[in-house]
Amino acid sequence: MKVFLDCIPCLLRQSLEAARMATDDEKKHTKVLKRVMAHLQNASFDKTPPELSKHVHEIIKATTECDDPYRTVKARDNALAMRLYSEAKRIVGSSSDPLRAAIKLAIAGNVLDFGTPARFDIEQTMRGAVKTDFGIDDYERFNSSLAGAKRVLYIADNAGEVVFDRLLLDQLRLKGKEITYAVKDEPIINDALAEDAKFAGIDQIAKVIPVGGGTPGVVLGLASPEFIDRYHGADMVIAKGQGNYESLSDEPIFFLLIAKCDLIAKDLKVKVGDMILKFGGK
Amino acid sequence: MKVFLDCIPCLLRQSLEAARMATDDEKKHTKVLKRVMAHLQNASFDKTPPELSKHVHEIIKATTECDDPYRTVKARDNALAMRLYSEAKRIVGSSSDPLRAAIKLAIAGNVLDFGTPARFDIEQTMRGAVKTDFGIDDYERFNSSLAGAKRVLYIADNAGEVVFDRLLLDQLRLKGKEITYAVKDEPIINDALAEDAKFAGIDQIAKVIPVGGGTPGVVLGLASPEFIDRYHGADMVIAKGQGNYESLSDEPIFFLLIAKCDLIAKDLKVKVGDMILKFGGK
Repeated sequence: MKVFLDCIPCLLRQSLEAARMATDDEKKHTKVLKRVMAHLQNASFDKTPPELSKHVHEIIKATTECDDPYRTVKARDNALAMRLYSEAKRIVGSSSDPLRAAIKLAIAGNVLDFGTPARFDIEQTMRGAVKTDFGIDDYERFNSSLAGAKRVLYIADNAGEVVFDRLLLDQLRLKGKEITYAVKDEPIINDALAEDAKFAGIDQIAKVIPVGGGTPGVVLGLASPEFIDRYHGADMVIAKGQGNYESLSDEPIFFLLIAKCDLIAKDLKVKVGDMILKFGGK
Repeated sequence: MKVFLDCIPCLLRQSLEAARMATDDEKKHTKVLKRVMAHLQNASFDKTPPELSKHVHEIIKATTECDDPYRTVKARDNALAMRLYSEAKRIVGSSSDPLRAAIKLAIAGNVLDFGTPARFDIEQTMRGAVKTDFGIDDYERFNSSLAGAKRVLYIADNAGEVVFDRLLLDQLRLKGKEITYAVKDEPIINDALAEDAKFAGIDQIAKVIPVGGGTPGVVLGLASPEFIDRYHGADMVIAKGQGNYESLSDEPIFFLLIAKCDLIAKDLKVKVGDMILKFGGK
């Protein structure tokens, strides 16, 4: 999916938000905005949003001299998600279709995001998830793909959300799948790192590997050789979040996300806030 | 009031909105965004939002080769407001305090705005206005100022809104005031021009003069000599809308507006959507 022009003001808004997380120095906030505008002014918009976002966040980090502006909110979201974990587990356990319930909760966890302007309440989303229909429902296809799959690659999205991913990973594990869980190897927005996967205990049930490339949302041309091997070697790929949909929408893989901005909602023909389980492709 | 850094992404969003109103040519939309970013990158943020906005809209007009991107929405808002005029007039006529009611309806008309991201329903706002308390209520001071005033300068804000201004101007007229109504002399956002004042019949009850300066929101240092004469010669000045508050907030004049963005609401210590009748000053 190519950048919409509407992404440009939104990237500026996000830059300011990140700069304020990184430092209280208003002069640096101004400098971030001006440097990001200088960059975007000469950038090609013939890219996906995650590609454009990568460079923007490099500018933010360099200008604020902070290698991880979202460190605090990631820790907060991990802790918040962990407080909700037992309840979420009970919801899955008491469901007549635990796989479907776990998918929905893993998607609900995708509201813990700083890549888009909308903010949702995770507790409310989590509690309403099982009763809420998917906006796009490729569950049958997901289920039959899974039945024939041994090696599953699960591409993570955000910190906090990892705890909800754990519920779905447990279901895959129960079905005997060999799981690879791909996370970012350097901080970008509030995307999950290996330490976040570890926080959710995912390193005990899956092989955790880095995506590489530094983009929020996997860009295959920039990803690490290890990731690419696992990507092509997997029988089934599950990609979480809007960023991965933006960069991989043409790929024949499963996308699990909440539609979090008008443009994605329009592209998917759903409403903002809808839970999406979609098989991609051209 | 100085520009907040949050105004910068918002100005980009507004630029794209205006560019799309001006032309369907997406290449021009891109060019607008890039040129606006090039300008803002080198601009001083030590200005009021209307000053920054002036240059941005000059870029939009030049790039899209359209001298009035908001022409269509202004005509639409004028027509919409005119359809509501008799009902609004009845609301004022049946009120126990027609002046207060007319002030509230004139403020309600301020929702017809493209200078801020929020969009409100004018019918709902108009019908709820009389029963709704002001977020800031300097009505007593307004009333006593008015009692001692002969020459009143009324600074207009938007097209459409002019029809609601008419209700308040009629009240001032009933009290024998000599009214000057100041409008823009060149298109800027959806701000009212002389033709809009004429559409609302205001030229028949007030002297309509141009503000000058080309900013949305009067900047005294840029305004026309005629405006400045009237401004200093008036016994009472009434300024409509958020833009005029942004540029004139330190002046001892009356501001009538709806708080339409988080930053103004925060500055005024009110909620977004609140009706404001405020006497300004340092």
